[in-house]
Amino acid sequence: MHPYELLSSEQVARVHEASLTIMAEVGLDFRHPEALAVLKKGGAKVDGHRVFFPGALVENQRVKPPQRFILHARNPENDVEFGCGQSLYAPANCPAFVTEADGMRRLGTLADYENFVKLTQASENLDLCSNMPVEPSEIAPELRVAETTYACLRYSDKCFMGSSMGEVGAEQTLQMVSIAFGDADDAFFEPRVISIPCSLTPLAYDERMLGAMIAYARAGQPMIVNSLASAGATAPATLAGMLALQNAEILAGIVLVQMIREGTPVVYGSGSSSADMRSGMLSVGAPEMAINNVMVAQMARFYEIPCRAVGTLTDAKGIDVQAGYESMMNLLAAQSAGVDFILHAVGSLETINSISYEKFVIDEEMVGMVRRIGRGVNIDDETLALEVIRQAGPCGQFLDKDHTFEHFERELFFPRLGNRDSYARWREKGAAPLQEAAGQRWRQILEEYQPPDFPKSTIDDLRRWMEALSGGGKNRNAPVPQTA
Amino acid sequence: MHPYELLSSEQVARVHEASLTIMAEVGLDFRHPEALAVLKKGGAKVDGHRVFFPGALVENQRVKPPQRFILHARNPENDVEFGCGQSLYAPANCPAFVTEADGMRRLGTLADYENFVKLTQASENLDLCSNMPVEPSEIAPELRVAETTYACLRYSDKCFMGSSMGEVGAEQTLQMVSIAFGDADDAFFEPRVISIPCSLTPLAYDERMLGAMIAYARAGQPMIVNSLASAGATAPATLAGMLALQNAEILAGIVLVQMIREGTPVVYGSGSSSADMRSGMLSVGAPEMAINNVMVAQMARFYEIPCRAVGTLTDAKGIDVQAGYESMMNLLAAQSAGVDFILHAVGSLETINSISYEKFVIDEEMVGMVRRIGRGVNIDDETLALEVIRQAGPCGQFLDKDHTFEHFERELFFPRLGNRDSYARWREKGAAPLQEAAGQRWRQILEEYQPPDFPKSTIDDLRRWMEALSGGGKNRNAPVPQTA
Repeated sequence: MHPYELLSSEQVARVHEASLTIMAEVGLDFRHPEALAVLKKGGAKVDGHRVFFPGALVENQRVKPPQRFILHARNPENDVEFGCGQSLYAPANCPAFVTEADGMRRLGTLADYENFVKLTQASENLDLCSNMPVEPSEIAPELRVAETTYACLRYSDKCFMGSSMGEVGAEQTLQMVSIAFGDADDAFFEPRVISIPCSLTPLAYDERMLGAMIAYARAGQPMIVNSLASAGATAPATLAGMLALQNAEILAGIVLVQMIREGTPVVYGSGSSSADMRSGMLSVGAPEMAINNVMVAQMARFYEIPCRAVGTLTDAKGIDVQAGYESMMNLLAAQSAGVDFILHAVGSLETINSISYEKFVIDEEMVGMVRRIGRGVNIDDETLALEVIRQAGPCGQFLDKDHTFEHFERELFFPRLGNRDSYARWREKGAAPLQEAAGQRWRQILEEYQPPDFPKSTIDDLRRWMEALSGGGKNRNAPVPQTA
Repeated sequence: MHPYELLSSEQVARVHEASLTIMAEVGLDFRHPEALAVLKKGGAKVDGHRVFFPGALVENQRVKPPQRFILHARNPENDVEFGCGQSLYAPANCPAFVTEADGMRRLGTLADYENFVKLTQASENLDLCSNMPVEPSEIAPELRVAETTYACLRYSDKCFMGSSMGEVGAEQTLQMVSIAFGDADDAFFEPRVISIPCSLTPLAYDERMLGAMIAYARAGQPMIVNSLASAGATAPATLAGMLALQNAEILAGIVLVQMIREGTPVVYGSGSSSADMRSGMLSVGAPEMAINNVMVAQMARFYEIPCRAVGTLTDAKGIDVQAGYESMMNLLAAQSAGVDFILHAVGSLETINSISYEKFVIDEEMVGMVRRIGRGVNIDDETLALEVIRQAGPCGQFLDKDHTFEHFERELFFPRLGNRDSYARWREKGAAPLQEAAGQRWRQILEEYQPPDFPKSTIDDLRRWMEALSGGGKNRNAPVPQTA
């Protein structure tokens, strides 16, 4: 097995050197006093908000995060390991809208959010709940972190992603995790929630993201240090330049996190692609997105830390052929490049702006397909099947052989949605679009959904904590409430 | 750059050994007296139709084909090189039907065939005409080779694929090529037409394919020695067993070709996938198809000859999300695995049974996308863009920079069909399905199409040759007519 690679090792090293030059000579803005203080103390040169990173400092810090780490789920059977050589998958992150089966869209709600958590929990191909499969638009912004964190903890016992929306949101998340996991103090630093703070490209971090990074790093919680550059708009139009720029941002974030708490697990993250030069807007269906998936995996291997890239993103507005080919392009590129964590693995439409229930389950099948590809081929005496080939002989057949029945379920992927009927049979059955079967499927999954075990006393503790928070909602910058 | 690989080198060697065992101990059927005579004379053990290949014989013969070779087009600017490290692309091959824009299908005609040749000629992403983008159903079978070969020569000056349907078809193709290229005798063995004879899986070659192989090999013309196994039906359900089986077939074909004329260029070919175990029918949208693409590339690299795998095949009946994701899965897997020649690169629907004009141009855009991915990233001082990054600085932007305008056209893919509008703009413009734009595009290409230069005297020679053939149509096994 060898991952798909587009860069030579010389090219990777050259990008690294270019990023060091950017960090040392151009610098990055950090709009948070504490971050500036930490960086200054750690040896960076600080001038106002601008921070310049000596090369030796970066080289010293970048080797400190672990090569691999376990993220613990509420149910230990659902723990996942980042950097273990297997890709992990989580749904779309950050859409504001839900695209309905008729192609029209509406704002997301908390009920949608809960449904997507349930669909994630029920999936054999998804490993983590994303932080924001859809924004719950009716929930007051200051209560969203608590409501969505509760939904993840209540409706799933898989790993989940925490909010990066400021220090307050991060502290709220950490407190709720602490209640839900019922921690003894000595387990406090065990990784139990992963967040995805994002740079402000080009070359800056805003106060909100830095606040979250500081809070999570202090608690020893892992982070995807992420860049979302748009080649031609927020980054050079040349992919080499975009890569050097985002790499400088990610390295700078990693240095900060390591200075706050050495050894904090980090994931090298990027959702970068190119701008459409007619509109200046990001395109996620562009082949540059797939190229970025591959380059990001290579940079992360160079730094010996896990990486995050993107799955089934598309610029298509509905579930059409474009949604299919763009989604598979990004997903398969990430999988074949050996990306450790594939975010937006299912559900996304319309350049990250929307999520679709139908696309969620269709993409989930695609994840099953690329997982089958990634599993590769088992080669031994039994699978080489020389005896069966001898038995069948020239012009023989294998449909009736025991060997076939013993192996086909493991060897051959079996789609739940993809249509393999003959043309005649397909017509006979009404030539229904795949979306119809997808609509039936997600409804059926939700009907059959059973919430995971969760002690009633812990649920009550979480609800009490949330009531205290919403009681204090008029003063959203107040210290977060104490746990019950 | 490193291709995507699913097998270790030990696994490749083990498959090779298993194939040698199959060839030596199980043997293959060759249903052609001359092929049997050649194989016997060359050292194989022949028993009736069954041929057993000693391992040393295979090892001696398999190293004889060239690692790379040039296929000459009627227009030398369109010559292509197999095995040069760049993927070559040709349209769908073998569909009987045309799927119309409304999703209904009908039998193909010679006019369709000519249209697909014209669309191939006009494409910047297609390198060869396929042999049979669609069967011209109204043409008498004994005249189809001549009519389709004429269409390829007349409406395109790119490379093209010749018929493998028997010795007569191959001889007709060779004669027409000879007329069209206006050969001096000394250029006769220059590769100018490539065919794709296919084994009869499992472990046999029929008379028709062997007749074509013998004719083309005598003329020194390259061949894709191809297997189309269906795991679980015509091959073991285990992919290891399927691979060992098809590899034995391909090696046996290569040995025969080398015995006929040593050094004849061959391409290691496979379009194998798995059977759907509910119906026993081949599925080309299965992930096993993509896995086969990757494995085939690895086996061919082991043998140091070029390879052929598949592009945008799908089991979908219409141009829907399934068509999109299955097509891209196979295409990107082939491209990222370093497949030299990607057949069925555009147009195919419904498990190879049908072709669609709309899908032809949509897939053609997908080929452009994967070609962009495969081109990778150019990294030098200019593309690393440090000066521009310095100029923009933290929180700056790149949309207005000269560097962006100088580079974006080469760096960033620009779709003709894929929709990148905002949701609001897309609705405003009528939310038209992509197929509508595709329908306009192929019609426009055909309207603007100009036939390549072709001396009128050569056209007349070809037409005279064809008239002689159709005059003799009632006696289709008669010796082929002499050139005018």
